[in-house]
Amino acid sequence: MKRIIVGQSGGPTAVINSSIVGVYQKAKELGIEKVYGMVYGIEGFLDENIIDLDDYLADDNNIELLKRTPSAFLGSCRYKLPPFAEAKEVYKKIFKILEKNDIDGFFYIGGNDSMDTVKMLSDYAKENNKKQVFMGIPKTIDNDLSITDHCPGYGSAAKYIATSIKEIIRDNASFGVKKPTVCIVEIMGRHAGWLTAAAALAKDDTCEGVDAIYLPEIPFDIDKFVKKIEKLATEKKSIVIAVSEGIVNKDGNFICEIGAGEKKVDAFGHKQLSGCAKTLADIIASKTGLKTRAIELSTLQRSATHIASLTDIEEAINVGAVAVEGANNGKTGMMVVMEREKTKNYKINYQLYDIHSIANVERKVPREWICTKHNKMKDPFLKYVTPLIKGELIPIYKDGTPVHLVRK
Amino acid sequence: MKRIIVGQSGGPTAVINSSIVGVYQKAKELGIEKVYGMVYGIEGFLDENIIDLDDYLADDNNIELLKRTPSAFLGSCRYKLPPFAEAKEVYKKIFKILEKNDIDGFFYIGGNDSMDTVKMLSDYAKENNKKQVFMGIPKTIDNDLSITDHCPGYGSAAKYIATSIKEIIRDNASFGVKKPTVCIVEIMGRHAGWLTAAAALAKDDTCEGVDAIYLPEIPFDIDKFVKKIEKLATEKKSIVIAVSEGIVNKDGNFICEIGAGEKKVDAFGHKQLSGCAKTLADIIASKTGLKTRAIELSTLQRSATHIASLTDIEEAINVGAVAVEGANNGKTGMMVVMEREKTKNYKINYQLYDIHSIANVERKVPREWICTKHNKMKDPFLKYVTPLIKGELIPIYKDGTPVHLVRK
Repeated sequence: MKRIIVGQSGGPTAVINSSIVGVYQKAKELGIEKVYGMVYGIEGFLDENIIDLDDYLADDNNIELLKRTPSAFLGSCRYKLPPFAEAKEVYKKIFKILEKNDIDGFFYIGGNDSMDTVKMLSDYAKENNKKQVFMGIPKTIDNDLSITDHCPGYGSAAKYIATSIKEIIRDNASFGVKKPTVCIVEIMGRHAGWLTAAAALAKDDTCEGVDAIYLPEIPFDIDKFVKKIEKLATEKKSIVIAVSEGIVNKDGNFICEIGAGEKKVDAFGHKQLSGCAKTLADIIASKTGLKTRAIELSTLQRSATHIASLTDIEEAINVGAVAVEGANNGKTGMMVVMEREKTKNYKINYQLYDIHSIANVERKVPREWICTKHNKMKDPFLKYVTPLIKGELIPIYKDGTPVHLVRK
Repeated sequence: MKRIIVGQSGGPTAVINSSIVGVYQKAKELGIEKVYGMVYGIEGFLDENIIDLDDYLADDNNIELLKRTPSAFLGSCRYKLPPFAEAKEVYKKIFKILEKNDIDGFFYIGGNDSMDTVKMLSDYAKENNKKQVFMGIPKTIDNDLSITDHCPGYGSAAKYIATSIKEIIRDNASFGVKKPTVCIVEIMGRHAGWLTAAAALAKDDTCEGVDAIYLPEIPFDIDKFVKKIEKLATEKKSIVIAVSEGIVNKDGNFICEIGAGEKKVDAFGHKQLSGCAKTLADIIASKTGLKTRAIELSTLQRSATHIASLTDIEEAINVGAVAVEGANNGKTGMMVVMEREKTKNYKINYQLYDIHSIANVERKVPREWICTKHNKMKDPFLKYVTPLIKGELIPIYKDGTPVHLVRK
């Protein structure tokens, strides 16, 4: 390979930029001449919105800043490539731009949809005898890519969630009120509960942990939930619950959409989606009279690089580097997967895997890791997740806030 | 003084526990024999819920942990002492407990309401020739205590807000969408806009900052707001707005309560308070068709000790120490105030001030620091706030999350 391009796609993570670092550094090590970045993913690429990464990353200080910069440095997109049959001109345009710029390696950092893009492009290249190689670099806070042990971005989100919930638990316990206070924390993850499950990490010697965890993998029963809170309220003063934004009832309807069985309508007559924590807090307040509070961790879950996991950052760098190494050895149509060694100490081996087995497949939290009786996570999950949040990379502060690297 | 007691009251902050450290360390330095803590403030004190701080703080490691522990280590309360005339028995009980335990110094860490407690108790002591002294130690994220330059707790909240908004701005700018995305961030402060104003700190060389800031000090005009967003949407793709939870319209009604002029009602027929960010996001989505997102920074603003300001921690320690020093010199009925030197370099002098001038007085953001034309903060505010967020005290991590000190 002589000239390569890297892009970012889908929802950002706290470490998505570390994978650019991995791609860039490995390319330089291998003597690759040019490393381009596509601005706003494949969508920007189609507009030939391309930058030369040397303009930013030739400076080692900027590499250190990029590792500490949240969100997609290059800009991201949610563009899904249409099938060949429907839009041959799109494929032709992509390869024309690649050829025009003499680019022979294409690296795409993303989740499920982005791996579909890599699959389509590598299939097209094979069918049409194109020389370019296409590689997928895993990234998603949702941790729902198949085959790989976990996904870069998840560990940092899990660390942020665990840290924030520990702080929320302390805060919620601060008043010695006679009436218990119920705090419901809403965590991202529309279909898979990996992020919400990470709330279990708040429990340790100095923290009692959350009182219950509700994942989208298990149908949510509002009546049982109210009973659970009523029981907890007889036992303790501070109750903290973690719920996934994606919890659904037995009929498959999102709790955030149903309220207490009726559709909510705002002042304009539009259906109002409050978020399920707010919905559940309203239900609890109304049915039990307890004091409630709803907290949505929101986009900070995916962008709080100031408390990113060092393990996650290093792994995000590694998956980028391994993709470049593989492509340089002629591989294409593959994604880097992480395989955990079955040894006592946590160790990851990096492999390449056929993208056809990965694209569009969603991995959920195994049912056997969820204790449905007590709404808790079982030990195998804790064993799985704990190594992923370890270590810190202290931000570079200027005048009291972390500094980031930003495109000009 | 031979035996003293310290309590915490009102909403917690990220550094409220550092003031306990200041009280404890200065007391030990002065040879004071016992430092008690009241559990759950004056409310717990009335139940004689008292602990010996030696049980925790004789160990220096625990002192370091306490500086890094969010929320009120001793527990807090929102109990407001009734006037003498109405409840003499309460005052008699308090002094009986003090006398029984031979306590001659009473230190109360809190905001406006808590300073009222100090005032009432010191007045009662004087009128009844009691020997005990009563001192107020300022604490509030709201920064609304009068006389003092600022309040411990504010700097750390401001640092969390600035850091989080920088991350939110990066996240919001990540997509190269054709349609602008409007992100509305709701910040605490029911009557004073100090915290929301701190959103201005997000702007620096690497961050464009927020596009507008709305404080409760200035009447909020929904039509003007919609027009402002419409104009911004013609100029840029990512729009981030900071609003105080306490913004009110010209008639003095909270925006979060009025929605678009009508009261919102939830599925149970109860008036629903969504938070003003959600209300404004719904209005913008409905009136402009733009994509919107509402984020409430919630209680993390006051409890995110993992990114507390070192300046704030040190000042919180100092106000505790100065209170003990003053009381040891016979002072009573006073609060520690911070006076900023009019020199080039930031420097704080600590003074004692008559509590009667402080209790129940609310300080707002000066109008001349607010640019109402562009909804921005002016330079004098930035000059005021910047030193308060400087410095960090790195958390003590175990297995990837910060460790706290917790009462047994």
